[in-house]
Amino acid sequence: MPTDIEIARVATLQPIATIAAKAGIPSEALNPYGKYIAKIDTQAIPGFEAKPDGKLILVTAISPTPAGEGKTTTTVGLGDGLSRIGKRATIALREPSLGPSFGMKGGAAGGGYAQVVPMEQINLHFTGDFHAITSAHNLLAAMIDNHVYWGNGLGLDTRHIAWRRVMDMNDRALRSIVSSLGGASNGFPREDGFDITVASEVMAIFCLARDAADLEARLGRIVIGRTRDKRLVTAADIKATGAMSVLLKDALMPNLVQTLEGTPAFVHGGPFANIAHGCNSVIATKAALKLADYVVTEAGFGADLGAEKFFDIKCRKAGLKPAAAVVVATVRALKMHGGLAKDALGREDLKALEAGLSNLTRHVNNLRKFGVPPIVAINNFTSDTAAEHELIRNYCRNHLGVEAVICRHWAEGGAGTEELARKVAALADEGEADFAPLYPDAMPLRQKLETIAREIYGAGGVAIDAKLQARFAELEDAGFGDLPVCVAKTQYSFSADPTLRGAPSGHTVPLRELRLSAGAGFVVAICGDIMTMPGLPREPAAERIHIDTQGRIEGLF
Amino acid sequence: MPTDIEIARVATLQPIATIAAKAGIPSEALNPYGKYIAKIDTQAIPGFEAKPDGKLILVTAISPTPAGEGKTTTTVGLGDGLSRIGKRATIALREPSLGPSFGMKGGAAGGGYAQVVPMEQINLHFTGDFHAITSAHNLLAAMIDNHVYWGNGLGLDTRHIAWRRVMDMNDRALRSIVSSLGGASNGFPREDGFDITVASEVMAIFCLARDAADLEARLGRIVIGRTRDKRLVTAADIKATGAMSVLLKDALMPNLVQTLEGTPAFVHGGPFANIAHGCNSVIATKAALKLADYVVTEAGFGADLGAEKFFDIKCRKAGLKPAAAVVVATVRALKMHGGLAKDALGREDLKALEAGLSNLTRHVNNLRKFGVPPIVAINNFTSDTAAEHELIRNYCRNHLGVEAVICRHWAEGGAGTEELARKVAALADEGEADFAPLYPDAMPLRQKLETIAREIYGAGGVAIDAKLQARFAELEDAGFGDLPVCVAKTQYSFSADPTLRGAPSGHTVPLRELRLSAGAGFVVAICGDIMTMPGLPREPAAERIHIDTQGRIEGLF
Repeated sequence: MPTDIEIARVATLQPIATIAAKAGIPSEALNPYGKYIAKIDTQAIPGFEAKPDGKLILVTAISPTPAGEGKTTTTVGLGDGLSRIGKRATIALREPSLGPSFGMKGGAAGGGYAQVVPMEQINLHFTGDFHAITSAHNLLAAMIDNHVYWGNGLGLDTRHIAWRRVMDMNDRALRSIVSSLGGASNGFPREDGFDITVASEVMAIFCLARDAADLEARLGRIVIGRTRDKRLVTAADIKATGAMSVLLKDALMPNLVQTLEGTPAFVHGGPFANIAHGCNSVIATKAALKLADYVVTEAGFGADLGAEKFFDIKCRKAGLKPAAAVVVATVRALKMHGGLAKDALGREDLKALEAGLSNLTRHVNNLRKFGVPPIVAINNFTSDTAAEHELIRNYCRNHLGVEAVICRHWAEGGAGTEELARKVAALADEGEADFAPLYPDAMPLRQKLETIAREIYGAGGVAIDAKLQARFAELEDAGFGDLPVCVAKTQYSFSADPTLRGAPSGHTVPLRELRLSAGAGFVVAICGDIMTMPGLPREPAAERIHIDTQGRIEGLF
Repeated sequence: MPTDIEIARVATLQPIATIAAKAGIPSEALNPYGKYIAKIDTQAIPGFEAKPDGKLILVTAISPTPAGEGKTTTTVGLGDGLSRIGKRATIALREPSLGPSFGMKGGAAGGGYAQVVPMEQINLHFTGDFHAITSAHNLLAAMIDNHVYWGNGLGLDTRHIAWRRVMDMNDRALRSIVSSLGGASNGFPREDGFDITVASEVMAIFCLARDAADLEARLGRIVIGRTRDKRLVTAADIKATGAMSVLLKDALMPNLVQTLEGTPAFVHGGPFANIAHGCNSVIATKAALKLADYVVTEAGFGADLGAEKFFDIKCRKAGLKPAAAVVVATVRALKMHGGLAKDALGREDLKALEAGLSNLTRHVNNLRKFGVPPIVAINNFTSDTAAEHELIRNYCRNHLGVEAVICRHWAEGGAGTEELARKVAALADEGEADFAPLYPDAMPLRQKLETIAREIYGAGGVAIDAKLQARFAELEDAGFGDLPVCVAKTQYSFSADPTLRGAPSGHTVPLRELRLSAGAGFVVAICGDIMTMPGLPREPAAERIHIDTQGRIEGLF
């Protein structure tokens, strides 16, 4: 099997206008970025707003393990499978972050024969959206320090400035800094630091905004700090929101690319899945729904985090009604959940596999709590055995009442997901879905967190110390009680302990911190160690990345 | 007269393929960024390398004053004037920096009826070149700290790391920081800081590179610090150059846009004119020369800095042979050089004007030292009088032996520069030019600086203390003696004192610091206060910039 980059290189891409035409997008609505990428001006599509919405299909997964699941490849493969069986399908994905490409991992545009292309541009600067978000974020930061420099008319308490700076880079040296050193002309020294751009609240806002006006209103609500008498200060108070909107104006148009098989794919926005909600932009999802009968989209991490936030934050706020959810699992990962070590995964082990199905079971049952009918996709690996596949299929049918379909998109592209595509389309078409969020807006914040912990994580409760109880009260009093809760905890377990695989129950979720993302519109409940600025490894991929003698990029993937 | 943005908004732009066709660029060579911007893949232009070069015309100016000169508008206007009289002309300009747009000044794409468009995109993210340069620069910075973190195998002396970080933002709080705070997992705390992106050595390298291979070689030569025993450490030692090249791969293609009158304009790269050489990319200039009979380009600041560096750094290294130089002046600025205050410029004052001609005189004579024939362009203001124009014309003809032509491009576009265009074309066609740099490569560095000071600034000498004398010796010993010298001093005076207008003589230029830009290929001689990270003013333009109810950008210009 050739590598991802080798497959992508020999692919014959179609001009982006050809792809756009498949989705009913006329060339007047295209803002091309090179030959194979375009931003879409939906206002230039005749009758756009009046078009009926297609069916929204979420691809989520079991709790991730080092064995890998292949959620993005399955999303791409399912889109191609739907195209192959004659459906009008599009895909909606997050944009990859530039920083991590130079660290450990490669690109994030699928793999094998299930990729979105042109992969090199998508994984590098693409259409510059993340650079625009970085600029908008850092403009606000510069204006805050500038405000303090010129007299601090708003009375900001500089010990409590909540707006850090961002860079799309893995750079641990910037996590914690002291800024404004070097004398009076550089301002008032204070503690500060950088997060990676995907952790920016501007990124979350960008992905939740309905349109340019909503974007600007949300930017204005960002809380950047407080006065000494604890009055909250916003980006609107700093007068930064107009200029931030200008910086984001073009970026807000969704990006259209294609899969290796020519299925239209929207790739737009990419917030962290821990301190933010981890899905592509609402604008891209809504555009995709207007332009296809089936839209396949993805949420970050496993279903306990990704799908829960997709439903309770994105769908709730954007008024989306998902029609079906695909839970991706692999035999190897299920065996890890059943207790096997990574080096033991190559052997058939039905006992470990059966034990590991506890993880899949809870995710499947959780999805039903949102009124969304699930289906299981088993992403085939060459080490899988027929008995293992049979065990999963029977278990799913008999114990969970769901179909489990073997998929071979990585090796075969859309031809390997035709069965999944047929069954997903049928499931979505049945109209069984009756989506509702897990909790109502009016539920108090603390109770929302406890509901998620109990209903989704299977926890006994949440440990909340007196200080955090007071913080809940403070947020409710300040008028933020209606917001959903965005939980940041380990993605590797239903519990807060990343080593507990399978389906632990009755554990206690320790709440460590509450952060307000008033612009994005959620309260972040941090229940574990959350790293918002990664570092580079001992031998970063950057050391091997280069342009070869034929002008091709090597080492990035 | 409508504002710049009003003029730009009502302009009917031609599709970029139409503009490209005027320059003989087939659509296969276009990588579009929206409808009116394209990056040009010169390798896709049939017979490109074999095409003869057009004539290169430099637009430079007298020493700048608060009255303004209009160098960029004259560059654009002259290009349009050449087009109007039937010549095949293109323009080559620097890209504007994003950061300053949110501070004091507006855009940097010309003005009045002499603009390059689409001005909003050009002044905001454009094709993302500066973001790519920022990423490449900061990747090297992250890899340096990462190298130290993982054991510092190269033995870097962390007190002497010469590679700061960059951001395309006016942000004084980042000028001087302490990084890697917060504990062992964040690295070893050290002093660091940020410059604005245009001050990055990567920007200078980008603009001097002949091609991708030269870019990578230059990146590898960047000196990022030294060991405790003073061995220099380079970006190649850090193994960063391959990945930096990958980040810059697309950016390196020159950007094509158009003037309001449809003249093709290359806008590519934009290094600082103090610590760097202040001209657009060599790649853009060379492409423009292959695609037109006359190429009008611009250098930063007045001719003492901008033209000198254009000749001694860019032309010397790129093998360019300029055919003529236009010195832009205004009646108002000349009167300031003659001693008038800014509020007195509205009145005719022939005496002050005549006194101020000393500044123009020295610049004109300086240009001749490079073997490049000069011509003077008087950028007309409504307050100018006929007698003032006549005085300048006569003085130039009788005392300097050059033509002085009145230009009205700001109010009239190319129709206002037809006379200038005819005379410039004639001057270039005469073949009078016999370009040579001011000093040979082999001249010792110190003598190069003294030659520039004496020959160009009219100085008596350069004050160099013992420490800096030793630094010259150190640079020569390390093998950098062949490099040209890039002087960073005030642009407002031939001297190092910004308040000395006119043509001061016999002054001493104080050398304060020598910096090695080994990748760019010059030694920076700092002779004054140089600010490499601007701050925002008390009421930054960002507070007024916004998107209006019709979706248009307001306040940026």
